[in-house]
Amino acid sequence: MTAQDKTSKADQAKLMDKIVSLAKRRGFVFQSSEIYGGLNGCWDYGPLGVEMLNNLKQQWWKHMTYRENVEGVDASILMHPRVWEASGHVENFTDPMVDCRQCKARYRIDVLFDELSLKKKKEILRELDPATFGGQQRDEVIEDAFAKRVGTDEAAAGLVSMLSCPNCGNKGTFTEARRFNLMFKTFIGPLEDSSAAVYLRPETAQGIFVNFLNVHAASRQKLPFGIAQIGKAFRNEINTKNFLFRTREFEQMEMQFFVRPGSDDQWFEYWRAERMKWYGDLGMTREKLQWHQHPPGKLAHYAKDAYDIEYQFPFGWGEIEGIHNRTDYDLSRHEQFSSKSMKYFDEETKEKFTPFVIETSAGASRSFMAFLVDAYREEDAPTAEGTTELRVVLRLHPKLAPIKAAVFPLVNRDGMPEMARAIEADLRSSFRVFYDDSGAVGRRYRRQDEIGTPYCITVDSQSLQDQTVTVRERDTMQQERVAAARLREVLAARLI
Amino acid sequence: MTAQDKTSKADQAKLMDKIVSLAKRRGFVFQSSEIYGGLNGCWDYGPLGVEMLNNLKQQWWKHMTYRENVEGVDASILMHPRVWEASGHVENFTDPMVDCRQCKARYRIDVLFDELSLKKKKEILRELDPATFGGQQRDEVIEDAFAKRVGTDEAAAGLVSMLSCPNCGNKGTFTEARRFNLMFKTFIGPLEDSSAAVYLRPETAQGIFVNFLNVHAASRQKLPFGIAQIGKAFRNEINTKNFLFRTREFEQMEMQFFVRPGSDDQWFEYWRAERMKWYGDLGMTREKLQWHQHPPGKLAHYAKDAYDIEYQFPFGWGEIEGIHNRTDYDLSRHEQFSSKSMKYFDEETKEKFTPFVIETSAGASRSFMAFLVDAYREEDAPTAEGTTELRVVLRLHPKLAPIKAAVFPLVNRDGMPEMARAIEADLRSSFRVFYDDSGAVGRRYRRQDEIGTPYCITVDSQSLQDQTVTVRERDTMQQERVAAARLREVLAARLI
Repeated sequence: MTAQDKTSKADQAKLMDKIVSLAKRRGFVFQSSEIYGGLNGCWDYGPLGVEMLNNLKQQWWKHMTYRENVEGVDASILMHPRVWEASGHVENFTDPMVDCRQCKARYRIDVLFDELSLKKKKEILRELDPATFGGQQRDEVIEDAFAKRVGTDEAAAGLVSMLSCPNCGNKGTFTEARRFNLMFKTFIGPLEDSSAAVYLRPETAQGIFVNFLNVHAASRQKLPFGIAQIGKAFRNEINTKNFLFRTREFEQMEMQFFVRPGSDDQWFEYWRAERMKWYGDLGMTREKLQWHQHPPGKLAHYAKDAYDIEYQFPFGWGEIEGIHNRTDYDLSRHEQFSSKSMKYFDEETKEKFTPFVIETSAGASRSFMAFLVDAYREEDAPTAEGTTELRVVLRLHPKLAPIKAAVFPLVNRDGMPEMARAIEADLRSSFRVFYDDSGAVGRRYRRQDEIGTPYCITVDSQSLQDQTVTVRERDTMQQERVAAARLREVLAARLI
Repeated sequence: MTAQDKTSKADQAKLMDKIVSLAKRRGFVFQSSEIYGGLNGCWDYGPLGVEMLNNLKQQWWKHMTYRENVEGVDASILMHPRVWEASGHVENFTDPMVDCRQCKARYRIDVLFDELSLKKKKEILRELDPATFGGQQRDEVIEDAFAKRVGTDEAAAGLVSMLSCPNCGNKGTFTEARRFNLMFKTFIGPLEDSSAAVYLRPETAQGIFVNFLNVHAASRQKLPFGIAQIGKAFRNEINTKNFLFRTREFEQMEMQFFVRPGSDDQWFEYWRAERMKWYGDLGMTREKLQWHQHPPGKLAHYAKDAYDIEYQFPFGWGEIEGIHNRTDYDLSRHEQFSSKSMKYFDEETKEKFTPFVIETSAGASRSFMAFLVDAYREEDAPTAEGTTELRVVLRLHPKLAPIKAAVFPLVNRDGMPEMARAIEADLRSSFRVFYDDSGAVGRRYRRQDEIGTPYCITVDSQSLQDQTVTVRERDTMQQERVAAARLREVLAARLI
């Protein structure tokens, strides 16, 4: 790591801290159960956060389901436990864990590795392979070689046996790795035994697959068609990190598009393009978005092809959406486990077959965070006194902005508050608006800039004479005079 | 029970069956995990159901939070376990259960009582109190006397000792009653021990109380102000019943309004009026709504006063919303359990005090069901041939209707489909619309009536000449001709 990398990393961490702090201070995101010290990996959306999250979800819902060939569903979070046997989650959705025989502390293997210093990694590699790592090796080579060994279960287990327990300090005391399932388990009914065990869904996708026949019958859709869903999912992550990025409770926006086998590659490309475009259309910086294709050896067991849309967060590139060709895996598995035919009958060709599925799986919580981070700017802005001052502004797309317009009486007298209140009441029936009459107007602008309000409307003395108001646009800070009577119409055209 | 009561009860059960069947067939509500035999007490919303539910939630959100003095939040479902100690749920949110010592079967006491025949109840009462129940007694007197004894824990335990186990048939084999907590428990992190136990929230209210300070600070609201939230909650009910009425997973729409003590009675009345009005404004039959005041002896431990809004379902009156004066109970308890001051400082009077809370707690799932049931009608409708036929129609308020307009080409040729498709594409950017070109127009109308679509637009041969279309209103079945170019505007005025 060069000195420059380090500075930039520190700057990026500071930037992230600023955004988390703004998110709390202004009411976007709070720690869950904060007064009790918080609950790791869970977050609450505050007054502005819930508006922005709802806007984001509505934009997705409109974009994805206001089409002739996509239907929506809202399936329950608790599902029949067989669902997760069919999906492979009971078997495969696991992380390897080890216990210290000495002190009984329990660790996820990758956490143990994450906490190792580079020096320690060097030592271990030297011990394992003195010929290669005996002399000097560049840091990157060490990191790479170590990461490669971590990549397979067996080699990772070998590494673990060489580690000391971070709790009691003993070496070689770890048990063999056991697989820990990431699904949250609970019990339905009064008995807490395995016959009553159910899981909180770890993804919303399966709620779509098990409803394929019902939706098909009720909607009379023909292939190709999709089923979309927004909802919460839960994963018992041991390593929660990076604010809303890796959490235990999160929200997904998923669409499964059912197609005739053979047309799957073409639809895969269609949805890749649609989904990437969506982020750009809502104002996300295109240079901070990239594709990451899963290499063939790393594809999930159900996937024929998979691409992630990654956003460049301050802590690095991170997935905000996955587009997957899930083949006929899920429907076939549910057919096998439920003994119900999940096949599609094509009335024109008289063929019966299991559709392939193209999945677009977006994180609502993650893309909320990406939009928030992407919108954050610190700018030099001119003051009324002719100097410049720091302006923090969220350049959120107006459709995502939690508050659409703020209304200010220039001074809190001379009939201005009355006119401003009347404008507020009129706008409030259509938009979320905010009324502010305290402090200098410049300060009121800054408060709205910081939360991304696209328009600020000021009632001044001219307003009382000619019934016009000033409308100030957030990004350009330009003001224009608009007839108060036309205000709602002018804003609606820009906001809806 | 009179013969007439019985008939009417059977009719009502049949009506409920019809609605449940329509809900499944047309895609409002499916059984959760149906291909695996379902999961008791969980339901999935289908394509039409999710639209209607979203409309309902949006109406509530707009009505409740597009005000100057109400903020929204969206708190996590998993919360710190101390929250439920403070709220009283760990201690009080329980049902009494008994086990059969002989066969180990486990029952909730009220389930045992529910399954008793009137004859059996008579026998038990005679045994307990031969003087009163030895001779003839009217059925209602028996039911009342039995219900009264069930009302207290002690007397209920006495009754249980006289019952036979429904499973093994032995009498007097039940253990003493134990309290079973209705919260779903799960474990956070890799250890399944009590230190890692967390609960799925049984109500959304506590997510509001624990955020009181954060919301107050971020929003700069002054008393009185409210915090609103829509979200899922979970209760491990043993007796799930009546479709969406008593389920294990459900959605709530709750608002907690924080007020100065002393002004609580006045705000209680204000919100009672507001909330009752809301159902009527969205078209619910006023005669099927009533107030039920909780009698003083039956108030919850936190409540000073409580009213339920009840809807007359086919199976009887049932609560769809509760308005509660929760006093300062919740904030005081959280102050006690978290050691954080939950007091409000009034900057004008310089007083510091714990606000009182008026709660409006509506069931999203329950009111969805009430709106669905209330909208269902079977009517005689004239046919084109001059006869009448049965018309099933959902008289849903246009704001709740899942599909806002259907577009039909009268015949599927002569340029009509092209014009109809153009209209569909234009409307689809604003509303959820449905295109249907199959079957006689009369049948297409019936399909839309059955799902509550308020407007059907038909493109006929005149349309091709003068660019007008017919707009048929669902309830009156009246048609009017409207210029195609004005269609969006005409519909928007009626729908938004």
